[in-house]
Amino acid sequence: MENNLWKHIVTVRQESPLVHNITNYVVMNNTANALLAAGASPIMAHAKSEVEEMVAISLALVVNIGTLDEYWVESMILAARKAKSLKKPWILDPVGAGATSYRDNVLSELLILKPTVIRGNASEIIALSKANITATKGVDSTAKSDEAIQAAENLVRNYGSIVCISGETDIIINGNDKIFLKNGHEMMTKVTGLGCTASALIGAFIGVIENKTEAVVAAMSLLSISGQLAANKSAGPGSLQLHIIDKLYNITEEEFSADLKLDS
Amino acid sequence: MENNLWKHIVTVRQESPLVHNITNYVVMNNTANALLAAGASPIMAHAKSEVEEMVAISLALVVNIGTLDEYWVESMILAARKAKSLKKPWILDPVGAGATSYRDNVLSELLILKPTVIRGNASEIIALSKANITATKGVDSTAKSDEAIQAAENLVRNYGSIVCISGETDIIINGNDKIFLKNGHEMMTKVTGLGCTASALIGAFIGVIENKTEAVVAAMSLLSISGQLAANKSAGPGSLQLHIIDKLYNITEEEFSADLKLDS
Amino acid sequence: MENNLWKHIVTVRQESPLVHNITNYVVMNNTANALLAAGASPIMAHAKSEVEEMVAISLALVVNIGTLDEYWVESMILAARKAKSLKKPWILDPVGAGATSYRDNVLSELLILKPTVIRGNASEIIALSKANITATKGVDSTAKSDEAIQAAENLVRNYGSIVCISGETDIIINGNDKIFLKNGHEMMTKVTGLGCTASALIGAFIGVIENKTEAVVAAMSLLSISGQLAANKSAGPGSLQLHIIDKLYNITEEEFSADLKLDS
Repeated sequence: MENNLWKHIVTVRQESPLVHNITNYVVMNNTANALLAAGASPIMAHAKSEVEEMVAISLALVVNIGTLDEYWVESMILAARKAKSLKKPWILDPVGAGATSYRDNVLSELLILKPTVIRGNASEIIALSKANITATKGVDSTAKSDEAIQAAENLVRNYGSIVCISGETDIIINGNDKIFLKNGHEMMTKVTGLGCTASALIGAFIGVIENKTEAVVAAMSLLSISGQLAANKSAGPGSLQLHIIDKLYNITEEEFSADLKLDS
Repeated sequence: MENNLWKHIVTVRQESPLVHNITNYVVMNNTANALLAAGASPIMAHAKSEVEEMVAISLALVVNIGTLDEYWVESMILAARKAKSLKKPWILDPVGAGATSYRDNVLSELLILKPTVIRGNASEIIALSKANITATKGVDSTAKSDEAIQAAENLVRNYGSIVCISGETDIIINGNDKIFLKNGHEMMTKVTGLGCTASALIGAFIGVIENKTEAVVAAMSLLSISGQLAANKSAGPGSLQLHIIDKLYNITEEEFSADLKLDS
Repeated sequence: MENNLWKHIVTVRQESPLVHNITNYVVMNNTANALLAAGASPIMAHAKSEVEEMVAISLALVVNIGTLDEYWVESMILAARKAKSLKKPWILDPVGAGATSYRDNVLSELLILKPTVIRGNASEIIALSKANITATKGVDSTAKSDEAIQAAENLVRNYGSIVCISGETDIIINGNDKIFLKNGHEMMTKVTGLGCTASALIGAFIGVIENKTEAVVAAMSLLSISGQLAANKSAGPGSLQLHIIDKLYNITEEEFSADLKLDS
């Protein structure tokens, strides 16, 4: 797998997949910029009058419930159902799963539509699998990634999704394999919505890469290596937010390969 | 008071309060990043289906009407009412008060729910007190801070709120005291939504600091000192926006104490 | 015309026009910051309960359909109708025209209200004129600017608007003239929403400059020259986004005049 990751990054740059995002207000600007920097082509659209048509012209769909409300949830369901029927890949980012009963009910409805990939922090993945063995504190994770592995395996079994638990170590789980990615930097937890950026980048990669597990690993490693290179020259999370965008844009194969820390 | 302010900043970093924001689209990303940089834990949520539950798990609520509409106003009222009933502290940021009759009507409804703190610029505070002796020009202030003191005193008397008038000099008024804070930098007026950031930070501080007046002063001085330190190394407001986030994250007690200009 | 452009930039700085934006979620923060940096005063407001009143106190209206939905479209129409009846200048940014039938239907309704200016990329302008001789790929342009000239001339004839086709060469077309502006930098296409920023700046300029064609050229040249100066010192699109804001704020007449590349 390791030898394919950079190739996948180049593929995204070359094919510039159109990625349809139904995401939250907090991260829309950063998500769009991250997708552009990585070479993809973002579209943000949520009107019930157009989401199905937008899914049809896109290569992948990103559904992120961060600032959900009743209207947006209807759009998310319309779009995810369309993606499922057209066999287009889509990713679910269950922001704040477990924080309110409303979020959990919405997530149940979305899970039925069998996301190609689910990416969340450990608390969210645990809440999502209904194990609910930990209390979610808002949108930040209070559970360790490895505690969430069993929860992720439940989700893989029940919905056929690839699950990515992001954290100090990112863990990507599909039917057969567990992949551990040990890149990233602690300061990244102080920038809002980098998890959302991860999900959006995964959207771009699953839109054009056939092997969906490799697509997820490529996207996650691109972001986490870019993040640690960016953090090394950042005085704080404000600088880090923009340096990550720069690095997604100008990272070289040498930089990527020198820092990759992958176990499987 | 001066000797307690840094202690309060450390308390926020250590306790990482969950702050529920119902705020405007323009500033959501920056507000979330400022809260994270100061050590707090932001959640943005506005769905009528969940705002009350979200208030219940949060330590403070921030209501900012910048890009209000009919749906969001219903959410704000639900959330503020819940905060009042649970005796949780909440802050009202009356963005653009006086600009339209709709904003003024909404603000009347919110004031009845007795915000713990109200923060606005001089024009907004004057409009809010119904004195309306100045015309509001959009969301930027055209009135001097000190002209708004009488308006603020009306609000303190009528709603029991602490009022913070932000401007070249920030003025914090409660039942007994007036505190004048002379930090900040002129370039800060060219960054959108730093007033909104101030309100969000106040939300974090009133969430964990018992003395609410000191909490407001600590939040305002943290932002204004961070702003002036950041402005000194910024070529323009684009750089300033991110350097403020960096400085909120890495400011030291020495930097804070050396620059604090407080009169009471 | 060339001799007037800097004068217009100074006029915006001095008069600080209030610009009412009904725009998309992705760009609101950046748009507001760009307007502030150029000296204007932005207000973002979309509530049906207040948009007409907000148009009445503003000097110009910006309508950008990027993240439209049914509610926002009603607001846009209310606001544009009000602008038309008060003879206030307004600009239409047809983001993603041609991507879905919904967008095209909405744009037909808005065109009837005769925008003072229309600004889009080549694909959008072509879609807007119903020529539809190219397929729009999301929100990024796939057509060359000069292919869109005929489409623009149709729009000028049918709606009396000034049309600005932005791209590697920006082309401004009114009833009599075509003006070609060859500033800008390729990296600007990797920052989300700089087209939206262009439209917002045009809003500020048409709010206070009598000659609307010169107003459009001044706004476009200010942004594109600021962009190329900013790109020269940016490692990637993250840095570029903020350096453009800085440069809009601190650009001098010398910098502006030295780089201006205008043909008419």
